[in-house]
Order: sequence, then structure tokens, then C-alpha cells
Amino acid sequence: PLTRRALTAGMVAMTAAGAICTATAVVGDGEAVGAFAITTGVALLAALLLRRTWAKRAMPTPTGRDGLMAAGLTWVVTSLFAAVPLLLSDATPRLAQAIFEGTSGITTTGATAIADVDGQAHAVLLWRSLTHWIGGIGIVVLLVAIAPAAGGAARRVLLGETSRATEETVAPQMRETARITAQLYLAATSIALLVLLAVGLTPWEAVNHAMSIVSSGGFSTRTASAGGFDSPPVEVAMLVLMIAAGVSYVVWWRLVLRRGLGQHAAELRAYLLFLVAMGVLLTVAATGKDAPHSVLAGLFTSASLVTGTGFTTQDPDTWGEEARLIVLIAMVSGGMVGSTTGGFKVRRWMTLFGGVRAEIQRQIAPQRIVVVRIGGKPVNEDTVRAAYGFMAVAFIALVGGAALLAANGFDLLSAFSGAAACLFNVGPALGELGGVESYAEVPDSGLLGLSFLMLLGRLELFTVLALFTRGLWRAR
Amino acid sequence: PLTRRALTAGMVAMTAAGAICTATAVVGDGEAVGAFAITTGVALLAALLLRRTWAKRAMPTPTGRDGLMAAGLTWVVTSLFAAVPLLLSDATPRLAQAIFEGTSGITTTGATAIADVDGQAHAVLLWRSLTHWIGGIGIVVLLVAIAPAAGGAARRVLLGETSRATEETVAPQMRETARITAQLYLAATSIALLVLLAVGLTPWEAVNHAMSIVSSGGFSTRTASAGGFDSPPVEVAMLVLMIAAGVSYVVWWRLVLRRGLGQHAAELRAYLLFLVAMGVLLTVAATGKDAPHSVLAGLFTSASLVTGTGFTTQDPDTWGEEARLIVLIAMVSGGMVGSTTGGFKVRRWMTLFGGVRAEIQRQIAPQRIVVVRIGGKPVNEDTVRAAYGFMAVAFIALVGGAALLAANGFDLLSAFSGAAACLFNVGPALGELGGVESYAEVPDSGLLGLSFLMLLGRLELFTVLALFTRGLWRAR
Ligand SMILES: [K+]
Ligand SMILES: [K+]
Repeated sequence: PLTRRALTAGMVAMTAAGAICTATAVVGDGEAVGAFAITTGVALLAALLLRRTWAKRAMPTPTGRDGLMAAGLTWVVTSLFAAVPLLLSDATPRLAQAIFEGTSGITTTGATAIADVDGQAHAVLLWRSLTHWIGGIGIVVLLVAIAPAAGGAARRVLLGETSRATEETVAPQMRETARITAQLYLAATSIALLVLLAVGLTPWEAVNHAMSIVSSGGFSTRTASAGGFDSPPVEVAMLVLMIAAGVSYVVWWRLVLRRGLGQHAAELRAYLLFLVAMGVLLTVAATGKDAPHSVLAGLFTSASLVTGTGFTTQDPDTWGEEARLIVLIAMVSGGMVGSTTGGFKVRRWMTLFGGVRAEIQRQIAPQRIVVVRIGGKPVNEDTVRAAYGFMAVAFIALVGGAALLAANGFDLLSAFSGAAACLFNVGPALGELGGVESYAEVPDSGLLGLSFLMLLGRLELFTVLALFTRGLWRAR
Repeated sequence: PLTRRALTAGMVAMTAAGAICTATAVVGDGEAVGAFAITTGVALLAALLLRRTWAKRAMPTPTGRDGLMAAGLTWVVTSLFAAVPLLLSDATPRLAQAIFEGTSGITTTGATAIADVDGQAHAVLLWRSLTHWIGGIGIVVLLVAIAPAAGGAARRVLLGETSRATEETVAPQMRETARITAQLYLAATSIALLVLLAVGLTPWEAVNHAMSIVSSGGFSTRTASAGGFDSPPVEVAMLVLMIAAGVSYVVWWRLVLRRGLGQHAAELRAYLLFLVAMGVLLTVAATGKDAPHSVLAGLFTSASLVTGTGFTTQDPDTWGEEARLIVLIAMVSGGMVGSTTGGFKVRRWMTLFGGVRAEIQRQIAPQRIVVVRIGGKPVNEDTVRAAYGFMAVAFIALVGGAALLAANGFDLLSAFSGAAACLFNVGPALGELGGVESYAEVPDSGLLGLSFLMLLGRLELFTVLALFTRGLWRAR
């Protein structure tokens, strides 16, 4: 039942988004009205049909498998559906491009297969932003409300945590937690909108970019991305909003209640420190190159990569090889667990580094008992092992993705960075797939492979892999 | 006492090697006589002084920490000493180049900082080959005889194994095991020598290359490496010998005793399958490019990389981006545990893949108990965790090495592959550090950093890291 409810919710969201886009098309430039009208109709029909398959009674607490199944299927189906109007409106002429763009939207990756963003219909641009926004609210509700309640497999996979002890939810009931999280997300969007209006964006641009930022998405209404505004105040505002979007919603809720940071303090500190450190390194690399406002450029690029938003103002590819390496490192990072960002996430890095340190100690003195701690709290062995497993699977996925792109004619740097940018839901990569380029020229097999990587990364790898195992389906 | 004995043995080996090189210089081209005479004298003095510090009684069974300490210090000291005649003879004019070349010899990496190998004195070339040979016999005696006997930390670190159950030694006593292993190594060298003579190498070239092959080293007497002979029969002979050098000495001993492969069958099969698979992929990539005898070229390149020997016949950099990716993958592999090869080694890969598979199953069904098996035998959790830890540390070392090379002006592909080629004791890398180039032009900081990576890789990472922890030294 959780799966059907989640799919229904996804289709209701698609219906609403379709209706908004149809209205925009009619009121605005009049382009792509038909494409969005059809999309809205199909989504509505699907939602109504799905709704008939479940009763409106209170749902029993979902099991871990329910959680994985619901998440996996909902993201796959919604991503594919997001491609429909893009294909119908000819924004992305090839089917693989449409699937890539739709998946990139829902997974909040923000990698685009549209070379000329400036020339697109308003409805198409709004649809892209809305898919980000829907994907973003979906992921925070999943991570903050559903996964902890579902427990078991869902908690392990989606939160990388195996014990309830190190975890904390916003409210005792799943429904209540989901409601509060969604309200926080709405509030965040409203604040982002006001801030962007205050620094001089037009309402149209502010709406689109607000949705793109709170979701850590990265689609822009301009081909030149954030650099298109050519305005330091706009860049500073976006920088601050991106950093805020990488903070866990549990932390925001604690701050609203004035409860202090609690166990999240260590992760928050590490997140901000890492972001600033990468920003300083990028600033150093950019200084002296053709990079105006190098401090702003360095910090903006760092925040954009660490949170995986993927907005670009300048091209770090022109800052030298060290800058490219820093871009690669920042790209895999991710923000805090419980935010809209993708990637490893800071708490998993802390677990990994703690695990490596403990392993060195153990290797020397096998009889000693070594406990991994984060911010003073012990982390159990299963959590450490899950983090290692995540790293290993991510590595295999990266090599596979890079092989696919290399076979499609990309050089290895573009191939590896492209695979990483999609797997970790960042968006733009380096070289031939850098921020000033697009994914439009990637052949079909490459686009579909990268779409798979986006889903893999968005759902913390193991959710998608679980869909391929019999164990998950047999339990139905 | 184990550390002092090991250091003494190292210096005795250096004395013998120095004497042989001095004699070669006197009898042969007369170059660098002084450099090698001084080296021999200093090594002899050091050996005699060291010998005075320990009694000739039967040694107690070493502890795990003794084993790590002895291995770590002996490899560091011998590597530095190997640099002495190279610096004195001006074969490597810069100190950092000499340290790089000496470390590359003893760790059997085979990366060279000498651009013009053809123009070197005979004694210098023989010294390079001898350092490989000594480093090779050192590592197999350490891995096959000392580490299993020392147990504890040494067994965990050097063999990646934590229980005696999954392990097997050649003979019940450490001394006896060491003797048999050394004899097998001598026999392997003799066979390699005869085979190379049979395919037409001169005695001089056969002696040098036999030592370079059995140790999986890779130094050649020619600037063009194995390609310099321009002879398919020579390449086929070297191909077979390289593959043989990647097989565990425990397996060779079982075959000598006609005992069958036992628990090693699965690892041997995986090793050969992987080597052939990479060979086929490289053949496909090479076909149609400027690569004569593409099947031989593909298999030779695969065997050279998988065993980490590092001989080159052709330049895979010209075979396209897919070939480069395959080179990178083959490079990190390594042969069987208990051979002279570096890298991850096949058994560790099998452990890692088993661990990832188990992790996926566990993530879906947390209550299920999942056991990792290799060739049907269960592998304990500590072993899996040690393999993950190895991967994580290797990754950090790679990024660090690549950052150092990028800061020294190398492009990222050259930087990453160069770091990998040194860390995994392969030798030549890709791009600016490819097989047709040398490391001669790398600045000092880069050469020293790469020398550190060679030692790190040769001693399975944790041995060297342990030297930096107080725990190891406090126990003295
Ligand atoms: K993104
Ligand atoms: K080598």
C-alpha cells in the first residue's frame, strides 16, 4: 500500500505541475500548450486509476522493504513521466534526451541535455524547475519522515544508519513528521524566492531559481546558468541559499524550536569547514587566471559542488589541473544527511574516516577494541561497513559509467567527471561535459546509462540495486 | 632482534650486489667502478656493525609487531641505500631521482627516473636489476614465511587475513619455509634465464631481464623496454614468465609436491580469467590502430599491468580512451597473494566483491545472516573489513599522489595514473608518465612523494602507516 500511495502522490504532483505549466503556456508565450495539456490529462488519469487500488484507512506502519520498494518505483516512474512533455514539446527531440532530462529533474541532478536553454518555451523551463522542486520535497520527506518510521532495510539503506540510537526524528508520528518537513520545505522555498526578488531577479527568474536552489537541483532558465545574471549580489544570495539547502531539515526544525544542534553539531561543523576549505583552494587556483571576483567565484563553485546544486558562474576548467582535482573531490562530497543534496554526504565521510583510523589501530594491535565515534557518539560496526559498501558500489558505478562514456568517444576526464556528476546528482562535470557545455551531444546509450546513475545516486545506491534482487519482490 | 636481523640481511644483500657490480664494472666497460666500490665498502661496514648488535642464538618466534617493524624499517633503509651508487655514479644526477630509482628498484616498481637507459654503464643497469631481484626475494620470504609465523598484526596487514584457518604455510617451521621459498625463487630465476637465452637474448640481457621478471620489477636494460627487442618470440616468452611470476609461491610449492591447488584454485582461476579478459579488451582496442600483432600486444600489455611488471612493447596511450581506462583497471589489480606482484591482489578483490554482494543482501534483509565465501570457504568479517580499509586508504593515497603531481604541472590523467603506477608497484603509467616516457622530469617533491607511495604499496599500506603510530614504537 505504501508503494501505491507513493505512486499516487507522485502522479498527483505531476498533474498539478502539468496544470501549472499548461496555464503558464496559455497565459504566457503560448508555446507547448498541447504537450502540457496532454501530460496533465494522462497524469490525472493515472492518479485516479492508482487511487482506486487502495483504501483510505490509516496506513499501517510501513516495513523497511515497503519503504525501499515505494521509493525505488516512485522515483523510476516519476522520472520517466517527467520526460513526457519534454518529448512532446520537442524541447528534447530524442527519447533518450527526454528521459535524461526528466530523470535529471526528478533526481535534482540538474544535468541538462538541452544545449540552448535560453530559447526554450516558458512552460518547458517551468516544468524543469517543478520536477526539481517535486523531487526535492520527495527526497526530504522520504529521508526525514518515511525512512526512520519504516526502519529496517529502509533506514539502513537511505540513512546509512543501523541503530535508532544515533537517529532522531522531527515528531513521534510519521504523518506529523512528514507534514512538518513539507512545511519547512515550503518555508525554505518562500524565503529563497523573497531573497532572490530582493537582489533584483524578475519574478519569473526568482520562482524558477528558488525551486532549483532549495532542491539542490541546478536547472537554470539561462544557458549560462547563474553566470547569466552577471551580478555579484545575485551570486552572493545564491551562495548563501545553496549552503542553507545543504543543511539537514532536522537541524532546521531544531533551530525553529530553539533546541540547539545536539548530535548534529559535529556534522554541521565538518560540512561548513569542508565547504570553506574547498572554496579557499579554488580561490587560490582561480586567482591570476581569467576569473574576476576570484573569492566569490571560488566560494560559489565550492558551495555549488559540495551541495551538488551545480549552478555555474565561471568555468573551473580554465583554472588549471589542481582546480580540476578539487572540483572532482568537492563533487563527490554532498551536504548533510537529511538535506536535498546527493553524494556521499558529510556524515558518511566522517564514518569512513573514523573507520579507516580504527582499522589502522586494529591492524597494529589486533587484540585492542576500537570504537568509531562521530562527535563523541559511538557508531556501530554495521554503519561503518555500510559506508564502506557504499564507497565500493559507488566506485564500481563510476568506473562503469566512465567506461560507457569513453566508449562513446569522451576523454577519460570528461567520462569520469560526467559519471560522478550524474551519480552524485551534481549536474555539470568537467571537460567536454563541463558547466559551459551540455549533455545534448551524448549518444543515447550514454544518456540512458547516466540516467540510471542519477537514480542510483539519488536513492543511496542500494535502493535501486535492491529492485534487482528477488528478495525484495518475493516479500509482496 | 628480527628487525636487526632483517636489516643485517638487507645490508649483506647490498654488499653482495655491490661486489658483483664492482666486478662487472672492472671486467666490463670500466665505468662507475669507484661508485660501486664505495657502495660495497659502506654496505659491508653497515652489515658488520649491525651484526654485532644481536646474538647468534635461535630467534624466538617473532610477534606481529616485530614483523611489521622489521619489514617497514628494512624496506625503507634498503631503498635509501640502493640510491647511493646511482647518485655517486651520476646515473641520476639529482638526489630525489636517486631515491626514486633506488626505491623503485627495491619495491620492484620499475618506474625509472633515467631517461636514457641505453646509455648507462653496465654496473648501473645490473645494480637496478639486482635491487629488483633482492626486493623480490625479500617480499616473498616476508609474505610466505615471516608474516604467517609472526601472526597477529603482521599476518593481518601483510596477508589481509585474520584467521589461521584460511591460510596455509609451506612448512611447519619459519626457517624451513623461508629456505624453501628462497630456493623456489632461485629456481624460478634460473628457469627464466634459460628461457630468455633460448629465445635469443644475449647472456647480459637474459640475466638482467630474468631478475626483472621474477621480481615483477620491470626495469629493462633498454630505453624501449621489452619493445626494444622487436621480437615476437621474446615477447611470448616474457608474457608466459610474467604470468608465472604472478602466481603464489605457495601454489608453486604445492605443484612441486604434486598436492593439487587446494584452496588456491579459485584465486588462480580468477587471476588468469581477469588477465585474459583484460587482454582481449586491450586487443580489441588495439586492433585497427597502429599496433602490429595486436593479440600479442594486448595480452602482453594485460599481463604486464595485471602482474604489475610494467614492461612495455607498445604504447597503449595510442589505442584510444577505452584502452586507457582498461589500463587503469588492470593496473590496480595485482596478481595472487604470495607472489612478487603489488596492487590489490586477486584474493582481496574477491573478498571485496563478496563483501559488496553480502552488503546488498544485508541492506534488504537486515535480519538475515550473510557469510562471505571465496571458493566455497567462509571469509571472516575482519578480513572483509580489512579489505575495505585497504581500498579506502589506497584511494586517499591516490588522490594525495595525484594532487602532488597536478601541483607539479601534470594533467590529471598522467597524475592519477602515475600515482597508481607507483602505489601499486607497476612502474610506467599513462600520458606524460607513459611507458615511452620516464619520470626523470618530475620535480623533486613529486619524486619523493611517489617514492613514499611505492613503499606504502609494497608493504600493503598499513605496515608503513603503522610506522607513524606511537603504538608500534612504544612496544619496544
Ligand atoms: K544538482
Ligand atoms: K613493477
